[in-house]
Amino acid sequence: MAAKAKRNHVELRPHFKTHVSLEIGEWFRAAEVEKITVSSLKMAEYFALGDWNDITVAFPVNIREIDRINSLAKNIQLNLLVENETALEYLSQHLRHKVGIFIKIDVGTNRTGLGPNQLSRILSLIQNIDNDSHLDFIGLLAHAGHTYGARGLRDIQQIHETYPKILTDIKTAIIHSFPSYSKLIISVGDTPSCSRMEDFGWADEIRPGNYVFYDVMQWIIGSNKLSDIAVAMACPIVAKHKDRNALIIHGGAVHFARDVMYHPFTNHKIYGLVVELSEKGWNRPDHKSYLAKLSQEHGTLIVSDELFNRYSIGDIIGVLPIHSCMTADCMGTYMDLEGRIIERM
Amino acid sequence: MAAKAKRNHVELRPHFKTHVSLEIGEWFRAAEVEKITVSSLKMAEYFALGDWNDITVAFPVNIREIDRINSLAKNIQLNLLVENETALEYLSQHLRHKVGIFIKIDVGTNRTGLGPNQLSRILSLIQNIDNDSHLDFIGLLAHAGHTYGARGLRDIQQIHETYPKILTDIKTAIIHSFPSYSKLIISVGDTPSCSRMEDFGWADEIRPGNYVFYDVMQWIIGSNKLSDIAVAMACPIVAKHKDRNALIIHGGAVHFARDVMYHPFTNHKIYGLVVELSEKGWNRPDHKSYLAKLSQEHGTLIVSDELFNRYSIGDIIGVLPIHSCMTADCMGTYMDLEGRIIERM
Repeated sequence: MAAKAKRNHVELRPHFKTHVSLEIGEWFRAAEVEKITVSSLKMAEYFALGDWNDITVAFPVNIREIDRINSLAKNIQLNLLVENETALEYLSQHLRHKVGIFIKIDVGTNRTGLGPNQLSRILSLIQNIDNDSHLDFIGLLAHAGHTYGARGLRDIQQIHETYPKILTDIKTAIIHSFPSYSKLIISVGDTPSCSRMEDFGWADEIRPGNYVFYDVMQWIIGSNKLSDIAVAMACPIVAKHKDRNALIIHGGAVHFARDVMYHPFTNHKIYGLVVELSEKGWNRPDHKSYLAKLSQEHGTLIVSDELFNRYSIGDIIGVLPIHSCMTADCMGTYMDLEGRIIERM
Repeated sequence: MAAKAKRNHVELRPHFKTHVSLEIGEWFRAAEVEKITVSSLKMAEYFALGDWNDITVAFPVNIREIDRINSLAKNIQLNLLVENETALEYLSQHLRHKVGIFIKIDVGTNRTGLGPNQLSRILSLIQNIDNDSHLDFIGLLAHAGHTYGARGLRDIQQIHETYPKILTDIKTAIIHSFPSYSKLIISVGDTPSCSRMEDFGWADEIRPGNYVFYDVMQWIIGSNKLSDIAVAMACPIVAKHKDRNALIIHGGAVHFARDVMYHPFTNHKIYGLVVELSEKGWNRPDHKSYLAKLSQEHGTLIVSDELFNRYSIGDIIGVLPIHSCMTADCMGTYMDLEGRIIERM
């Protein structure tokens, strides 16, 4: 991802919400990453303690956190996301230190942000930012979250063909009204686009996050190969039921979270894919073995006959998570292949 | 629930996996509860530190936790769940202290346990328990988890009419082979049955847990009224989008978990129901306002016009969770109506 950013002359500001780990953050530092993205003030505080000094909170600013915002903004370059007048006015009145402001643009996900048909509100927000010495207008931020509905390269491509123009058009209109903001940046960053698209010349910054581990969901979307997935759950087998080829594991909804997908080949409803753990990582045995059901603490794996016979109660078996961000959040720490614990927030 | 247990002359051994809080545990102690159920060794250790001395871990024993089992069994009456020969043999070989053993019976949920057609395996397990001085056979434990598919009293009743006989038949067969176990107990405990059924004369112990808070899922199943729900999420509003009557909250899948149901009246897919918070608790404004979408950190509430207009960015709004066990697990602590924090494990 760092190489792709360099080729495109865009800044890589990776999203750290997937791993939320100071130690893993250092791996990014080794790839010359200096600026990061997070999704809450709490994460921003955590990474600021780890010497990250330029952090964008890619979530509409929660004005109730003004004290935390002021504390952070005193010490680091903190960038906030604004998408409405109320929040901006509140910041204007209560900020005691300079913050960077991104305006959130809705490029079709319809979650938050101002759309291309709300240009006058966008311009009026910029006017208000411009009038306030604590507010520093940086640019436009978008998350093309609708790529998560994509299934394969062509779908990703199609979305990628429409949303850049929305952003560059708004940028042009802003510069027309505010020539002094000719250097405003466009920040984008969904993992599917960043993984599969090559041309980011139209943007200034990319913020992918999930690619640190990838997962089964991103595989189904088409972002990565199964062999790119870099995180798996290790679960003890506590029961076997031959009549239904089921291995019961200690590994339930409190561990995996409850993200679910349909397997593109078998059409099974899957909460994860079974892998066999080894010293060097894991191997995927077949497409038939999957995590089929979750209770609070139990997981039910449906596995091939061969796998069923080979595994005993008390053995450890691996599961690739559907959504690594959520599973990692549930688990709280990682263990690497040498058995060393890697801490999370 | 304590009164119902008394009326039926059965023991109430509530499941503490929903609240997982020493302080809330004390509220049960006030209702004369002395024995509890948990779903992991970790929870058992936590409650043992809080002076609970008779704990059933209602999860098939994970033999890899033998050291933790031995440490706990040294100090408290620890009851474990066995459903296969491998785990029992391992316990036989490695236990250094006495534990109570329940045999897990599958009464139709098809998750774990031995079914009524596996009587010879059940009897042979009991023979092996009987031969080991560290193993103390207590009885049969079942979880009629298929009541979670129920929609209304009649469904719950129907399930309740079939599974008791499975257990009493197995009990009779065991006593026939082992007259010395005439006092073996039958332990059951899904929240829907325990909430709506009256006759538990055929059982010896009930283990409901979710009823401490209830939730929207249990309301849809038919266990409780909406006004019985005793836990809500308080979420700040960070954005408003009039074109789709959406209030965006900081409250996503990492906070709520991703349990989802269909609203029985409106048929909307809901991740929670909107309530208005007040000093004394909350009120439900209407059936139209619900949590419609979750991202990792964002939640999208679709609300009535009236509610949309009344709420501003920065306000706090309430959401009743679909599955309180999961939401409480995600959040980690509670706040009571006086603003006091109640700790969880």
